Amino acid sequence: MVELDGIIQDIAAEMAARTDRGQVATYIPELARVDPAAFGIALVDAEGQVCAAGDSDKPFSIQSISKVFTLTLALGKIGDGLWRRVGREPSGNAFNSIVQLEYEKGIPRNPFINAGAIAVADTILSGHKPNVALGEILRFLQFVSDDETIYIDHAVARSEQTTGFRNAALANYMKAFGILENPVELALGVYFHHCAIAMSCRQLAMAGRYLAFSGRHPTTGARVVSADRAKRINALMLTCGHYDGSGDFAFRVGLPGKSGVGGGILAIVPGKASICVWSPGLDPQGNSRLGSIALELLAKRMRWSIFGD
Amino acid sequence: MVELDGIIQDIAAEMAARTDRGQVATYIPELARVDPAAFGIALVDAEGQVCAAGDSDKPFSIQSISKVFTLTLALGKIGDGLWRRVGREPSGNAFNSIVQLEYEKGIPRNPFINAGAIAVADTILSGHKPNVALGEILRFLQFVSDDETIYIDHAVARSEQTTGFRNAALANYMKAFGILENPVELALGVYFHHCAIAMSCRQLAMAGRYLAFSGRHPTTGARVVSADRAKRINALMLTCGHYDGSGDFAFRVGLPGKSGVGGGILAIVPGKASICVWSPGLDPQGNSRLGSIALELLAKRMRWSIFGD
Amino acid sequence: MVELDGIIQDIAAEMAARTDRGQVATYIPELARVDPAAFGIALVDAEGQVCAAGDSDKPFSIQSISKVFTLTLALGKIGDGLWRRVGREPSGNAFNSIVQLEYEKGIPRNPFINAGAIAVADTILSGHKPNVALGEILRFLQFVSDDETIYIDHAVARSEQTTGFRNAALANYMKAFGILENPVELALGVYFHHCAIAMSCRQLAMAGRYLAFSGRHPTTGARVVSADRAKRINALMLTCGHYDGSGDFAFRVGLPGKSGVGGGILAIVPGKASICVWSPGLDPQGNSRLGSIALELLAKRMRWSIFGD
Amino acid sequence: MVELDGIIQDIAAEMAARTDRGQVATYIPELARVDPAAFGIALVDAEGQVCAAGDSDKPFSIQSISKVFTLTLALGKIGDGLWRRVGREPSGNAFNSIVQLEYEKGIPRNPFINAGAIAVADTILSGHKPNVALGEILRFLQFVSDDETIYIDHAVARSEQTTGFRNAALANYMKAFGILENPVELALGVYFHHCAIAMSCRQLAMAGRYLAFSGRHPTTGARVVSADRAKRINALMLTCGHYDGSGDFAFRVGLPGKSGVGGGILAIVPGKASICVWSPGLDPQGNSRLGSIALELLAKRMRWSIFGD
Repeated sequence: MVELDGIIQDIAAEMAARTDRGQVATYIPELARVDPAAFGIALVDAEGQVCAAGDSDKPFSIQSISKVFTLTLALGKIGDGLWRRVGREPSGNAFNSIVQLEYEKGIPRNPFINAGAIAVADTILSGHKPNVALGEILRFLQFVSDDETIYIDHAVARSEQTTGFRNAALANYMKAFGILENPVELALGVYFHHCAIAMSCRQLAMAGRYLAFSGRHPTTGARVVSADRAKRINALMLTCGHYDGSGDFAFRVGLPGKSGVGGGILAIVPGKASICVWSPGLDPQGNSRLGSIALELLAKRMRWSIFGD
Repeated sequence: MVELDGIIQDIAAEMAARTDRGQVATYIPELARVDPAAFGIALVDAEGQVCAAGDSDKPFSIQSISKVFTLTLALGKIGDGLWRRVGREPSGNAFNSIVQLEYEKGIPRNPFINAGAIAVADTILSGHKPNVALGEILRFLQFVSDDETIYIDHAVARSEQTTGFRNAALANYMKAFGILENPVELALGVYFHHCAIAMSCRQLAMAGRYLAFSGRHPTTGARVVSADRAKRINALMLTCGHYDGSGDFAFRVGLPGKSGVGGGILAIVPGKASICVWSPGLDPQGNSRLGSIALELLAKRMRWSIFGD
Repeated sequence: MVELDGIIQDIAAEMAARTDRGQVATYIPELARVDPAAFGIALVDAEGQVCAAGDSDKPFSIQSISKVFTLTLALGKIGDGLWRRVGREPSGNAFNSIVQLEYEKGIPRNPFINAGAIAVADTILSGHKPNVALGEILRFLQFVSDDETIYIDHAVARSEQTTGFRNAALANYMKAFGILENPVELALGVYFHHCAIAMSCRQLAMAGRYLAFSGRHPTTGARVVSADRAKRINALMLTCGHYDGSGDFAFRVGLPGKSGVGGGILAIVPGKASICVWSPGLDPQGNSRLGSIALELLAKRMRWSIFGD
Repeated sequence: MVELDGIIQDIAAEMAARTDRGQVATYIPELARVDPAAFGIALVDAEGQVCAAGDSDKPFSIQSISKVFTLTLALGKIGDGLWRRVGREPSGNAFNSIVQLEYEKGIPRNPFINAGAIAVADTILSGHKPNVALGEILRFLQFVSDDETIYIDHAVARSEQTTGFRNAALANYMKAFGILENPVELALGVYFHHCAIAMSCRQLAMAGRYLAFSGRHPTTGARVVSADRAKRINALMLTCGHYDGSGDFAFRVGLPGKSGVGGGILAIVPGKASICVWSPGLDPQGNSRLGSIALELLAKRMRWSIFGD
C-alpha cells in the first residue's frame, strides 16, 4: 500500500504538470464553469484502505458515471428482463446518436449510451413519481459509498433540462416504439437529475467497491449484488463504458471503466481495487483526457490490466 | 489439472448430447459439408499441459480466427503505424458491413471485421508475392503451435474466392480511399487463403499460448511478442472478437475470444490458459453456438472471467 | 368538358368496383374509423368548371396535403430564406425517418417529409400563438378554395397529439440543431392541427387552382403567388410529394401531386386542371392506392402527363 | 426560331463572360485536361431545326448522360422486368454511395446512380462479349443522332478503369446479392466504355429527339420507343437525373435532364425541343455549373418549364 500510495502521488503530480488537458464540456452551461486545472484521484483496495491525491474530495458532476448505478438498480428491480428493452452490444456510434434507434426498432444498443440510460431510468421509475425514483437512486449511492452527504446539483439538472433536446428526441423516439412505459417528461426528468448528482473521487471510488469485490462491500461483507451480476456489469463497462472510445480505453488501460462528461472516470480492478479519477478536460470522444492517461499509467505500473501482466 | 480435465470431459459430454446446435455456415460450399455433430475442445495451461476432449484433433477451417495471427504479424512488421489504417473500436455492425466504411473514409473499424482483416493482409503482403506472405503466415502458425503439419485447405480457399463478392466490394472500396497499397486481387488472395487454413482445437490452443502467457511460450520462455502487445491483442479480442455478438460474449463468458464461421473459438485466460473449442453450428451472429456455451460453462466453473470471480 | 366528365364518371365507377383497395391508416385511431369503400374525385379546369364523381363532397382528413399550403404561406412570409432551414431534395427515406436529420445537421431534406413540415409550421408560427398561426392557415385555405366552411377536426388533432412521439422526436432533434425557433410543443401543435384540417375533394381541387394556373385564381384572376413560385411548388410536389414513392408516381402518373395518409391526393396539371382524388386505403409507401391508379388512368386518357403525350 | 436563335446566342455570350465556372472533374486524369473555358449549346426543335452556339461541335466525354441511352436499350431488351433489378426512386445519396445498396439488398435505387447504371450495362451485356454490347450501344447512339462519327474515347475508358475502385466495389456488392448476371469485370468494362463515349452538344441534342417527341424522330417519324416509354424515361430524368441535386434542378430549371461529370447536360422539353449544353466546371453535386444556369435562363425566357408558365 505504501508503494501504491507513492505511485498515486507521482501520477497526480505528473498530471498537474501537463498542459494538454483537453476541452471542458460546454454544452451544459453549468459544466463549462469548472476549473480545467482540477485533477483528483482516489482508490480503495481489498482491505478497504483509501489512497487519494489532488482534488480527490471536491465534488464534481458525475454525469454518465451514474448510469452504472442506475443499471445496477434496474437489474435489481426486473432482472434479466431488462435486456428485452436494452441491448448489451457496443454501439459503434456517438453517445447521442439516434440513427441506431431507427434501424433497430427503438431498442437502444446498451445501457450506457444516452438512449439506453433513459430506458433504464424509465424502468426505475415504473409508475412512481420522479422524486421517488430519484430518492431511491440517491439512497443507493449513499449506501454503496457509505456517505450520506451525496446530493443532486439542481442547477446542473435544470441546465440540462433546458438544453437537452437531443435527449428529448431519443426519449420520444423510444416512446414511439413502446420502449418507454412512463410519460417521456418523467423518464427524462429522472435521467437529467441522476446525471446531475455531485460526487468526489473518494465517494465514487467507495461506491464502486461492490463491482471490484464480487458484489460485496469488502470490509463489512454486505452483499450489494450477486458476484455474477458484478462481473457482468464490469463486462458492460469494458465494452461500452467510453462511447465510441471504448475500444481504445480497453486497448490502452485494460480495465472496465465508465466515464462522464463532467470529467470523471470510475475504473474497476476486479478483486483488487475501485478507482476514480477526475480531470474536466475531455478528448474528442467525450472522455476525460488526463483521466484516461492517469489510469493507463496506474494500470501499467501496478500490472493491473485484466488482459495480462 | 485433474479437476480441470474432469470439467473438460463433462462439458464435452454435455455438448455432445445437446440438440440445439445452431446452423452450419452454408455461404461457402466447402464449409457446408462439415458434420454438424462435431464438437472438440482443447486447453493448454501455464505448465504447458494439454487437456482435450471430443474431436480435438480433427482439423477444421479456422476462418476468422486466423485474423488474430495476421494482426500479430502485421503489428510485428509496422508496429503502431497499423492503427493509421485500421481502427480499434467495436463496429456495431455485421462482419461484412460496408456502411461503416463509407461514413469513415474507407478506414475499417477494427482488424477483426472483414474489411479490417483485408487491410491487415495487405500490410503483410507489402509488395511481395501472395505466396511469400502466405508462407510467412503459415510458418508463424507452425511456430506458435509447435506443429509443422498445419496447412492451407486450397479447396476452401478456391470456394471462397469464387463467391467472395462482398469481400471484393470491401477491398475495392478501401482501395478507392487509398487504404490498400497492393493490387486488390493480391490482398484478397492472401485474405482468402489465410482464412482457409485448417487446424485442430489442439493446434489452435497451442498457437494461442503467447497471448495467455505475456507474449511468451510458457514452457521454453521464447518471446513471440512483448507482454504489452499480447495484452492489447487480448483487449481487441474482448471488444471486437465476435462481430456484433462481442458484447454478449463478454457479458456471458468474460474472456477475450475470437470466433470463426468454421465454428471454432479461440479463448484466452490471461496468465492461466489458452483454449480452443469447435462446433460447426452457428448462432445468428455467426459465432459457434455450442462453442460459446461450452466456454461460458468452463469460465464459470473455473472462475476464470476476467471481470471478477 | 363533356368528354372529361364522362372519363371522370368512368374512372369513379371502375374504382368503386375494385377490391384491391390497400390498407386504411391505423396509427391514428380517428383515421382508422374511415369507410374503406369511399372514393371521390373532383377536378377544376381553366374555365373554373368543376367535374366531380363519387364521394367528392365528403370531408376527409387532408393530413400531409396541408403541407403544400403551409409551404406556400411560409414562402410568402420569409421567401427563399426558407431554404436555409429546409432542403428541396427528395429524401430517399420514409416520411418519418430521423436518420437523415442526424447525417445532415438537423436540416430536413424537403418541406414535405414530416420534419420539413414541422420546420415550415415553426416558420409560420414565428413567435405568435399557435391559434394565430392556425387561423392564418385556415383562412388561407378558405380563401384559395372559396369556401368558408373548411374546419380543423379537433378530434383528429388530439388523436395525433397523444400518439405523435415520432414527430416529437423529429421536432426535438431539429430544436437541438437550432432549426426550430419556437418552443417544440407550439410548433408541433400547429403541425398536428393543420394536418387535421378536413376538406372534401371539391374543396381541395378548388384550393389547388393557383398551382395549376400560374399563381392566380383562374376565374377572378386574383394573384395568390407569383407564377414562378407556383411552378416551383409544383416541382417540389413532383420530386417529393409522395415520400419514397415519389419516383414511382412521377413514372406512372407524370403529374405534380401531394398525398396524405387520410387517402387524399392533390394533383396539378399545369395550365389545365387542379384535381383531387380520395380513397382511404394506402399502399405500403403510405399513398392512396386507388387514388394513384385513378390519376394514372385520368392522365393517360387525357394525355396530361407533363413528360410528353 | 429567329427569336430562339437570338436567345441561344445571348445565353452563350453571357456564359462566356462568367468567371464562376465551377471545378473541372479531376478524379479521371483524362477529364482533368479539358479547357474550363469551353461552353457549348445546341437545340433541336419539333421541325428538326438546330440552333447552336459556342463550342457546340466539339466532342466531350458524355459520361453519365450515356445512362439515358443504355436505359433505353435495356428497356427495349427486357421491358419492365428491368424494374425487378433496379428501382426508380431518387436516391437521396451521392452518385457513388454504397450505403443504400446495403440497406436495400443490393438493388440500386434508380438507373442513373452508378450502381444502377452498372446493373443496366449488365442487362445489355446478357451473356455476350463486352464488344458486342458496346457495339450495340454505339450503333444506337449513331442511329438516334443520325451521325456515324460518334466514337468511344479509349483513353478515357482506360483512365476510368484504372481508378474506378468505387465502381468495382458497387459492382461486386451487387454481384454478391445476385443482381448482376455477368462477370463483374465484363459489366464494369461495358460501363466504363459507354461512359467514355465522346459526343458534341449538337450530336447529343439530336440523340435526345426521341425523348422530346413522343418516342419518334420528329422529321422522319421513325419510332425509337413507344410514347409511353419516352414519357417515363423523362420522368426518371426529372426525379433522378442530377444525383442529389435533382430536386434543385427541377426547382430551378423545371425540365427533365441528365448530367455527366464531363460537364454536359441533356435536357428535354416535351413536345418542343431536345437541348444539350456543355461547360466542364462542376458544382459540388457534380453537375455542370454554367450548364444548369444556361438551362435555367433558357427555360425561363421560353416559358418551357413543365411545371407551368
